[in-house]
Amino acid sequence: MEDFSQWFHNILEEARIIDSRYPIKGMSVWLPNGFKLRKHILESLRSLFDKDHEEVLFPLLIPEDELAKEGIHVKGFEDEVYWITHGGQSELNKKLAIRPTSETAMYPMFSLWVRSHTDLPMKFYQVVNTFRYETKHTRPLIRVREITTFKEAHTIHATKEESDDQIKEAVRNYKEFLNLLGIPYLISKRPVWDKFPGADYTMAFDTLFPDGKTLQIGTVHNLGQTFAKTFDITYETSDSTHEHAYQTCAGLSDRVIASVIAIHGDKKGLRLPPLIAPNQLTIIPIIFKDGGDEVIAKCEEIETVLKSQDIRVNIDKRDIRAGKKFYDYELSGTPLRLELGPRDLKNNKAILVRRDTLEKIEINLNEDYVSKIKVLFEEISNNLRLQAQKNMESNLVITDNLDDVKGLIDNGKIVSFSWCGDEECGKSIEEITDMDILGTQHFNTDKSIDLNSDKCIHCDKKSKYSALIAKTY
Amino acid sequence: MEDFSQWFHNILEEARIIDSRYPIKGMSVWLPNGFKLRKHILESLRSLFDKDHEEVLFPLLIPEDELAKEGIHVKGFEDEVYWITHGGQSELNKKLAIRPTSETAMYPMFSLWVRSHTDLPMKFYQVVNTFRYETKHTRPLIRVREITTFKEAHTIHATKEESDDQIKEAVRNYKEFLNLLGIPYLISKRPVWDKFPGADYTMAFDTLFPDGKTLQIGTVHNLGQTFAKTFDITYETSDSTHEHAYQTCAGLSDRVIASVIAIHGDKKGLRLPPLIAPNQLTIIPIIFKDGGDEVIAKCEEIETVLKSQDIRVNIDKRDIRAGKKFYDYELSGTPLRLELGPRDLKNNKAILVRRDTLEKIEINLNEDYVSKIKVLFEEISNNLRLQAQKNMESNLVITDNLDDVKGLIDNGKIVSFSWCGDEECGKSIEEITDMDILGTQHFNTDKSIDLNSDKCIHCDKKSKYSALIAKTY
Repeated sequence: MEDFSQWFHNILEEARIIDSRYPIKGMSVWLPNGFKLRKHILESLRSLFDKDHEEVLFPLLIPEDELAKEGIHVKGFEDEVYWITHGGQSELNKKLAIRPTSETAMYPMFSLWVRSHTDLPMKFYQVVNTFRYETKHTRPLIRVREITTFKEAHTIHATKEESDDQIKEAVRNYKEFLNLLGIPYLISKRPVWDKFPGADYTMAFDTLFPDGKTLQIGTVHNLGQTFAKTFDITYETSDSTHEHAYQTCAGLSDRVIASVIAIHGDKKGLRLPPLIAPNQLTIIPIIFKDGGDEVIAKCEEIETVLKSQDIRVNIDKRDIRAGKKFYDYELSGTPLRLELGPRDLKNNKAILVRRDTLEKIEINLNEDYVSKIKVLFEEISNNLRLQAQKNMESNLVITDNLDDVKGLIDNGKIVSFSWCGDEECGKSIEEITDMDILGTQHFNTDKSIDLNSDKCIHCDKKSKYSALIAKTY
Repeated sequence: MEDFSQWFHNILEEARIIDSRYPIKGMSVWLPNGFKLRKHILESLRSLFDKDHEEVLFPLLIPEDELAKEGIHVKGFEDEVYWITHGGQSELNKKLAIRPTSETAMYPMFSLWVRSHTDLPMKFYQVVNTFRYETKHTRPLIRVREITTFKEAHTIHATKEESDDQIKEAVRNYKEFLNLLGIPYLISKRPVWDKFPGADYTMAFDTLFPDGKTLQIGTVHNLGQTFAKTFDITYETSDSTHEHAYQTCAGLSDRVIASVIAIHGDKKGLRLPPLIAPNQLTIIPIIFKDGGDEVIAKCEEIETVLKSQDIRVNIDKRDIRAGKKFYDYELSGTPLRLELGPRDLKNNKAILVRRDTLEKIEINLNEDYVSKIKVLFEEISNNLRLQAQKNMESNLVITDNLDDVKGLIDNGKIVSFSWCGDEECGKSIEEITDMDILGTQHFNTDKSIDLNSDKCIHCDKKSKYSALIAKTY
């Protein structure tokens, strides 16, 4: 894409996703169409998490002393926290933080809730807005000051082993969720200097944007016993001793929505997987001088049939050129449009047009066209996912020459290299290349990249990891 | 109810609705069970509003200058607004308010969105958290500092007439919604000194709590052109002149959830309308020494059948006394429980127990028991609604003697009286009785109360209105 940044800005406005003219930098309004897209994405997410997590809702505000309790954690956030100092005309006795994330809101309560090993595991999640006083250049849905759609899961376990298993389960859940949306991802274990503040280790999902930068779209953290010790979360074991619990947390944000838009979109506009599209199918009556009523009646009949099968369908009856309607639904990414004119009516046929390929498919309205439409929805989802996956894979390259890294990445690639894993060496690689090490690989693409070579790309030590490096958002 | 306040406090904890031990006064955590109740209530609400409103989501924070723009409005909120003064370590150039309500967040954007009379009407709503720095004694779900479930609708119209019609429609929507939940209500037009800051007039819904106090549970405001003038919301008419738009807004809060709990509950716990109950039916296997497996298998078969019919059902297989299970489900308000033991199994029967009446009903599992259960759900909803309605009506009294008002209200009544409508007279009535005039009546109970008498209860002027006065929360 020639100028992704401009394209992304325009599409958010033209497809009526969000309005970024709100008078605070980094905060935007979800417009009706964007809100529906967000809603369907959240429904998909909830259907996965509701299987074994319980949804809760914690307060937005965190007292200063709770936020400050866990030293490493607060250090990671102190430059980014918004502070409330006044209520009405009066100064508050204790400052209140707007949650940047909810560990310090939740864990004092977990300390009250966890009593016995029989209570464990406990798994919760919530979908809330969180805030970061972002000083870098903001960008809608990507780098914002109000994250409107933060899904955070928090789990509590009796043993380290169970917490490690939970990390694997969370990764599986995120994979399933991102597969539903057709977003390709690379999973890596973040370098120690880039893990979540307070975590033992962090697993992260990154995707590749059309401008060649990677975007972190999900993270899963094993917190070990660090927070349990700080917030005194203990349980009674079966032999009546008391132990600190083990914890994990995991988060996804508005960036998932940004990725759906950025990765599937094309020059004509959005291309949305049917699962999450505000409208899955739009019926466009093709009306000439005569016979309009019959065409409309047939369109309405089809609408009723599709609605009864839980397909999100609308008819565009506006009195404007059909071409303008085609343009609108290509822009808004509706997966299928159905065109029906007087001649089609006579033959009891209609034309379906796929948004992903723009392919035209004639359907016979005497036959079971609903099943055909459902099959097409599957095909569209698969095609979008595979296209995106293929694109990311084609931009993954391996090198054992550090001098090549910057050039490759500047050409839109993500680079895999062999690495010793030492912090000093890793930071030196980042400095030399002016790029970020995403982490050590836990790959999920067909292109299997095991240890690239025996020797670290930068130092003389033995290579321990296959690592990823990229230009990041 | 002997001590409603204590009962309400206990039930929120025991039925795991919310945890009010969060370390900020007036802010609580929604527990999984409470979250589900809240979710189903929101689903009911959305199904009504999605018919002709579009859901949107605006930022939480409002710049100081936007909040201050509408003078009357800001005066009404200035003592209650939380202020953000710092981002990270730095002081902000411009203070940010946490929304107490969203007029001043939305209307600058409406000014950009509204262009032509053909754009109108526009109808939006959002469900968000709002904040009030409450200095009075807080009480979970009733008087809080974080309102977690604020549903606010905002509409824009070309004419005053259309805005008045919208008020009637909003009132109809709220009536339908509250009827679904079985919450009785009185609708009145608030006195001028108690209307929404900036509104032309305010219509309010009040319900009666078991302690004899009324609770405002919903409001609908006609804003006239006041905000349109302040925020420059204009449209081009069909003859190309520019006019200020007319606006309305309407809100509901956590108090609706408080009302469901308080009004339907009894000594044993919650009683929930099936529409919103987290579990609609709980299956309790009655297991003695032998035959447990067959009983469980039958229970699971029933569970599968009910689930396939979209009934929210669970089986309680815990290894504890059946009596303890009965106690738990009576506490949590599950509308129906189904008991099935070895003898029932032999006869292919089961016992249903209604939570609202505790009545036992034998059902034959060879027959269409799903339909029977659905009919019972309807009956339970109706019974809860009618009981609550009857109770409120029995506590509505008419008097034409001002000396009696305080005594009647202290005995848990809401009093209707004839009133001239003058502000001075009204405030004097409030002062003498130490009670609040709810407003002038727009009645919806069977007990038809038109103008009670020709003469104002307090002054010598002619009575214009039938008014309501009560002890309010």
